[in-house]
Amino acid sequence: MEMPIPNANVLSRKSQIVERLQSVLPPAAVIHTESQVRAYECDALTAYKCPPLCAVLPASTEEVAAVLKVCHDMGVPVVPRGSGTSLAGGALPTADCVILGTARLNAVLETNYDDRYIRVQSGRTNLSVTGAVEEMDFFYAPDPSSQLACAIAGNVAMNSGGAHCLKYGVTTNNLLGVKMVLMDGTITEIGGGHLDAAGLDLLGLICGSEGQLGVVTEATLRILRKPEGARPVLMAFNDNEVAGACVADIIKAGVLPVAIEFMDRLCIETTENYAKAGYPDCNALLIVEVEGAPEEIDEQLALILEIARRHDPVELREAKSPEEAARIWLGRKSAFGAIGQISDYMCLDGTIPVSSLPMVLRRIGELSEEYGLKVGNVFHAGDGNMHPLICYDANKPGDLELCEAMGAEILKLCVDAGGCLTGEHGVGIEKRDLMSHQFDPADLEIQMAVKDVFDPDWLLNPAKVFPLDTSQSRRIAAE
Amino acid sequence: MEMPIPNANVLSRKSQIVERLQSVLPPAAVIHTESQVRAYECDALTAYKCPPLCAVLPASTEEVAAVLKVCHDMGVPVVPRGSGTSLAGGALPTADCVILGTARLNAVLETNYDDRYIRVQSGRTNLSVTGAVEEMDFFYAPDPSSQLACAIAGNVAMNSGGAHCLKYGVTTNNLLGVKMVLMDGTITEIGGGHLDAAGLDLLGLICGSEGQLGVVTEATLRILRKPEGARPVLMAFNDNEVAGACVADIIKAGVLPVAIEFMDRLCIETTENYAKAGYPDCNALLIVEVEGAPEEIDEQLALILEIARRHDPVELREAKSPEEAARIWLGRKSAFGAIGQISDYMCLDGTIPVSSLPMVLRRIGELSEEYGLKVGNVFHAGDGNMHPLICYDANKPGDLELCEAMGAEILKLCVDAGGCLTGEHGVGIEKRDLMSHQFDPADLEIQMAVKDVFDPDWLLNPAKVFPLDTSQSRRIAAE
Repeated sequence: MEMPIPNANVLSRKSQIVERLQSVLPPAAVIHTESQVRAYECDALTAYKCPPLCAVLPASTEEVAAVLKVCHDMGVPVVPRGSGTSLAGGALPTADCVILGTARLNAVLETNYDDRYIRVQSGRTNLSVTGAVEEMDFFYAPDPSSQLACAIAGNVAMNSGGAHCLKYGVTTNNLLGVKMVLMDGTITEIGGGHLDAAGLDLLGLICGSEGQLGVVTEATLRILRKPEGARPVLMAFNDNEVAGACVADIIKAGVLPVAIEFMDRLCIETTENYAKAGYPDCNALLIVEVEGAPEEIDEQLALILEIARRHDPVELREAKSPEEAARIWLGRKSAFGAIGQISDYMCLDGTIPVSSLPMVLRRIGELSEEYGLKVGNVFHAGDGNMHPLICYDANKPGDLELCEAMGAEILKLCVDAGGCLTGEHGVGIEKRDLMSHQFDPADLEIQMAVKDVFDPDWLLNPAKVFPLDTSQSRRIAAE
Repeated sequence: MEMPIPNANVLSRKSQIVERLQSVLPPAAVIHTESQVRAYECDALTAYKCPPLCAVLPASTEEVAAVLKVCHDMGVPVVPRGSGTSLAGGALPTADCVILGTARLNAVLETNYDDRYIRVQSGRTNLSVTGAVEEMDFFYAPDPSSQLACAIAGNVAMNSGGAHCLKYGVTTNNLLGVKMVLMDGTITEIGGGHLDAAGLDLLGLICGSEGQLGVVTEATLRILRKPEGARPVLMAFNDNEVAGACVADIIKAGVLPVAIEFMDRLCIETTENYAKAGYPDCNALLIVEVEGAPEEIDEQLALILEIARRHDPVELREAKSPEEAARIWLGRKSAFGAIGQISDYMCLDGTIPVSSLPMVLRRIGELSEEYGLKVGNVFHAGDGNMHPLICYDANKPGDLELCEAMGAEILKLCVDAGGCLTGEHGVGIEKRDLMSHQFDPADLEIQMAVKDVFDPDWLLNPAKVFPLDTSQSRRIAAE
């Protein structure tokens, strides 16, 4: 992946920039020595690394505004960063940028059970939002796999989902409002603890905008009452396509489980060796979870199991206790880690209409043969959000490039099947050049013109989202 | 409400404009005689009327594109119109505009039960979308009171809701994609039958943009399996505030009925005289409906009724049959019509956090005394979407202005309570000058700059949404 040429004029002024930032922040909040800035050289897309010019850790909206004003006035690019768990390189620095970390923005500002929302600073981790309300039996629904570490700032930037988003929707369906700082330091509030917005729906636009429009410092999030109970069932099949057809039939029947997760043979075997969850020997596995009162669960599962039986399953295993439920989830939750133990991998993120699951899975198998790279499939099947894991060897010259080329083919396949380049990880640097496959030049031009409105100098999160040549020429034109 | 000064240069070229439109459409699709254009002089905000220059009725996306290109090239404003049921004047013409009616864009283009969506032309009425899928036991969830007449085009423009949106969300939660024509005639597709969008979420931006950004010609809509059954319960109270507190307690308890509707004494009495639904003699009435399997309904209603009993109800009446259910809903569904029989009225549309319902209802009562105008309250209480109906006499000089002034105070009250100017009717002309109460100049400037991107000449749906002076100066600057 090509990196942009850093602005020499910015690099040469490093000491003045650091000095100006130190004048608006406490000394410890400006990180600028070569060894310290290394901590920010990459996110979870570790194939790409680049130390930033420096990093700052503001603790309030006002400090964020002061940082952005300094950078705006001095023409310095800014890369906002949640917890750095992006799999798409959404927080990858450029050599001439200031990393704006949200780690110190972690306070709970308000909990309101009457109107069912919580207002937090954006650096707070996803799981600790639920942690702040669970004593009252409430929770925050979107649950990315990285929820122990990932920040709400990143969730809002990428419109993150998770296993349970089939029922509860992704971030945009659970976000009520934000406080955001524009690149010039202007503080703005959008949405709040009420239904809908007057005028244009800027909140919908900002959710998923990958730090291109502003830096979100506070978020008002919908909280929900915890369901009475939940129960998963594990379904084993001999064939990927049959499992895919079973998912499509469950969705078509109109039952709405809270999660439908899919794993193929590579993931099942690797996970079993690693986590010993007791999964059966099979080619494809579904975990379907429903929730509610016990009788509601019984009724939904009866219908789901009846559909599954029509697809000639190897095994259907309903959890009979919380321990059995935990074991069913254990393998799924360990899958990424397990694959990581045996190989380097790149985790893709495309969405497709659910009915094309069997076709897309078959074609991924064919591509795996053609490229000679193993692919593990583990993903949120119920809403058609695919996560193929392509295994490669980072030490073998050319293997990363081969992996990226194959990844691009899979994502194009998703788009051609009527789907989308990204479900929840975002475009980042990973998919920026594929945007031209999804959008024609006129569509891309409109998106970039919207970016012009919020960030006319193209200083925010550079070299991401849009094809590099177009975004770079936009930035040069602004200089 | 002030109307913009028509562009004399456009008025003087009427015959050329009609001729050019006739060259791209069948003859019957261009309506231009004085008597015929009267049919388009207003929408459901009948206090304001203005015949347009002419009206066109294209039947395809290509015809819409041809019309917009003609108007763009000739500098003619265009007002898109669904079925003209807007209560906020969203489709009110200007004297120099072409009305673009969607009445002939009414085809079903695709139904896909596997992926649970339907693709329709945008002029199709809301209820006939459900009509197209109900033989397979599916339905389209958003249900505005005007659903028999209102078009999907208008639903998308206003992000419409309805009684059952407490559970299913409003239009933006049920819209998967659109085909849209920009003012210069460019045809663009946004979203589709899959989860999420790559790049900026333009679909979220377009939903609710009130025809300011483009003309939507097709919509891909989520369809859902019909629930097994539904059952309403009627709850009568002696006091508005107590009923409001009961709503807040139901929401706070985390149960999610499919609808919670509210009516006050004026609405109850007027409706009872008109529709004879057998409502009890009381000051405030709630209709709470839950759905699902019979045992699920029993369980939810038991909890809801337990909460209601704590608020000293006058009567709790659970529907024991489909006939009783229909009678409970009959009054609510007749309420607007019933008030219309006794008085002219203006229907407001603001949202508030549910917990402030009691305070806002009390203050509306005080304002009613101060202004000497009766107010009926009938609204979607569960999601805090208020619809105060202010009664006035259209034949009494000054009464409309008094009504508008009082309406403005109520909407400001909603904003000050932490709510929003509009829940589902949109800003239109009705609330354009109140936008400055909700947004500061920097926020409005961003919204207008986004409009600049899509419609740089400010030709689309003029004099709506933004304060008249600012939108007019924008348009003049573009000329």
